[in-house]
Amino acid sequence: VISRLEVTLPKDASDRSYSIVVDPDPGAADRFAAELCARLPSGRIGVVTDDTVSRLHLGRFAGALRARGRRVAAAVVPDGEGSKSLERAAEVCESFAREGLDRGAVIVALGGGVVGDLGGFVASIFLRGVAYVQVPTTLLAQVDSSVGGKTGVNLPAGKNLVGTFWQPRLVYVDVTALQTLSDRDRAAGLAEVVKHALIADAELLTLLERRAADARAGDPALLAELVLRSCAIKARVVGDDERELTGARALLNFGHTVGHAIESASHKSHPLRHGEAVALGMLAALRIGRGVNPQGGAAALEPRVAALLQALALPTNLDAWLSAETLARVAVDKKRGGDTLGFVVVDTPGTARLVPLPPLRIHEILLGKNEK
Amino acid sequence: VISRLEVTLPKDASDRSYSIVVDPDPGAADRFAAELCARLPSGRIGVVTDDTVSRLHLGRFAGALRARGRRVAAAVVPDGEGSKSLERAAEVCESFAREGLDRGAVIVALGGGVVGDLGGFVASIFLRGVAYVQVPTTLLAQVDSSVGGKTGVNLPAGKNLVGTFWQPRLVYVDVTALQTLSDRDRAAGLAEVVKHALIADAELLTLLERRAADARAGDPALLAELVLRSCAIKARVVGDDERELTGARALLNFGHTVGHAIESASHKSHPLRHGEAVALGMLAALRIGRGVNPQGGAAALEPRVAALLQALALPTNLDAWLSAETLARVAVDKKRGGDTLGFVVVDTPGTARLVPLPPLRIHEILLGKNEK
Repeated sequence: VISRLEVTLPKDASDRSYSIVVDPDPGAADRFAAELCARLPSGRIGVVTDDTVSRLHLGRFAGALRARGRRVAAAVVPDGEGSKSLERAAEVCESFAREGLDRGAVIVALGGGVVGDLGGFVASIFLRGVAYVQVPTTLLAQVDSSVGGKTGVNLPAGKNLVGTFWQPRLVYVDVTALQTLSDRDRAAGLAEVVKHALIADAELLTLLERRAADARAGDPALLAELVLRSCAIKARVVGDDERELTGARALLNFGHTVGHAIESASHKSHPLRHGEAVALGMLAALRIGRGVNPQGGAAALEPRVAALLQALALPTNLDAWLSAETLARVAVDKKRGGDTLGFVVVDTPGTARLVPLPPLRIHEILLGKNEK
Repeated sequence: VISRLEVTLPKDASDRSYSIVVDPDPGAADRFAAELCARLPSGRIGVVTDDTVSRLHLGRFAGALRARGRRVAAAVVPDGEGSKSLERAAEVCESFAREGLDRGAVIVALGGGVVGDLGGFVASIFLRGVAYVQVPTTLLAQVDSSVGGKTGVNLPAGKNLVGTFWQPRLVYVDVTALQTLSDRDRAAGLAEVVKHALIADAELLTLLERRAADARAGDPALLAELVLRSCAIKARVVGDDERELTGARALLNFGHTVGHAIESASHKSHPLRHGEAVALGMLAALRIGRGVNPQGGAAALEPRVAALLQALALPTNLDAWLSAETLARVAVDKKRGGDTLGFVVVDTPGTARLVPLPPLRIHEILLGKNEK
């Protein structure tokens, strides 16, 4: 069953509604091409993808578009976070300009989070902005980064310090693409599903607990359901606060403040996947929630979430990661406002709230110096 | 007399109105700082400027901001079009990140068109977009590029192939800054005033004709009036079509299709200023208007505009510039839609319209092969 979510971004008179299509069946590339052509009937197509995804999936997607008479150019970047750079964005724009893409062009980001962030950024700046479509091929991208319109590249000074808010015109999720995913990457994607459950959908949390083994094994129908429910949550939160102005969107950062710090610190020794770091970051956030409000629900939730993460083959050894370097990185998180961090805590599954906290208090709670 | 235009961009529910202040009096830097602080009361300030402008004007503007307790970091780029690059944008973003500018920061673009385009682009991508303010210091920037929210940098493949639409929160025009401008740069700026007159303000055209000598000599009160009337026209046209979707904004391209081609071709031998190339491009557009509609008003307007341009010390030797290279560049203008160019013609002063024309027809008319 092909599912479809209609997303309307309300705070704008212009037409910026789009569809998220979750397609679990074989042959999705052709249906994707039909959908793209129906929505964006003209213009050359510029596909942004990476080495691995181009080998696995570019042929069938580009082929399906060409079979419908579309001209397709592809810009293939190296795998990995290193491609999220302004230099790489410049190269992709240059190649599309030389291929003759004009303002009517459509950029297709075919790949995981890196390709989505880079491709969306390129679409937002090429000729002052052209249409783009996300075709996420990793679970992380399918359940999270392909929805929401945040694009970004890194600077030497930090991750995602440059970017735009630029909404896709279509997100087409080919669930069968996940068959080529490693167990580790699948687990990393499931971490963001746990996050969505914790901040907005208590029922999704129970589903994950009940079927953790199936999720870990990559059951296709279950993955399709997890993707759909995750996208619905993300799209709803983003619709309330597209540009991260009211604080509503900040709830999606649950587990990410400490998670980002752990992820960055991990690159020196044992690099963690983003989702793995978020798993640890969620445990940190629950501990902080307990520290802030010892009588609240976070205390009971902590072991429950740890058990779920373990069942999903995600790391739970938070204390091993709380180095001085990690803690220092928490303090320079770019979302800081003045001297406090807006920190997201969850007391009850399905409900998140933002608590202003000074970084020092976060350090104290994380290290167990919690005698206030 | 300090004049003020309130600009509201209508097609958006969010608050994106801003002021254009035209300040002809000495001591403008201090009033600018007061205005900026009133509108954007907090946040560090990142000034983008170039070598020449930093020598001439940075001290008083940064000093006035610091006197009001604001923290100011400056990124000084080399003079000239070469600074409109993604590499330079990356450097400026990196330096602002290292200075600790956060999402509450305010970017001030202090300089001419290059600095305005680069500074606006940086503001639109730094931390996914921060506020920015234009302080144009050349006549070209004061009458044209500082208003409208188009930002851009160049690629090897062409000019302004990368950019955004990002509106300033304030445009503060210090007319006294024009005292440091060369005669040639002042004349180049006047070309865009002539353009605004031709497409939207017949009375402004008569004013320019009547006081061409004063304009050429840089009479301050006259320049202030020309800036104000130009900004009013530009802001009105942009308000009708912020993102160049309906064709209304395209009217601002009068003289620019051939003008850009001449400007690019000129860099091999005798580089023209943008405004000088636009002067020639307007004569080309009038010739094309006459070719398309021999009975229309363009025939009478052509010698009148040529006389005005001459009185303003702007080039009028169009035929000398119509090389094969120039004509080839007209055909690859990025604003083409399909096989025709949307070409702006003026038959009657103050009224412009868009005519679809195949590039070959443009070539024929320009070269006088006009026997249809």
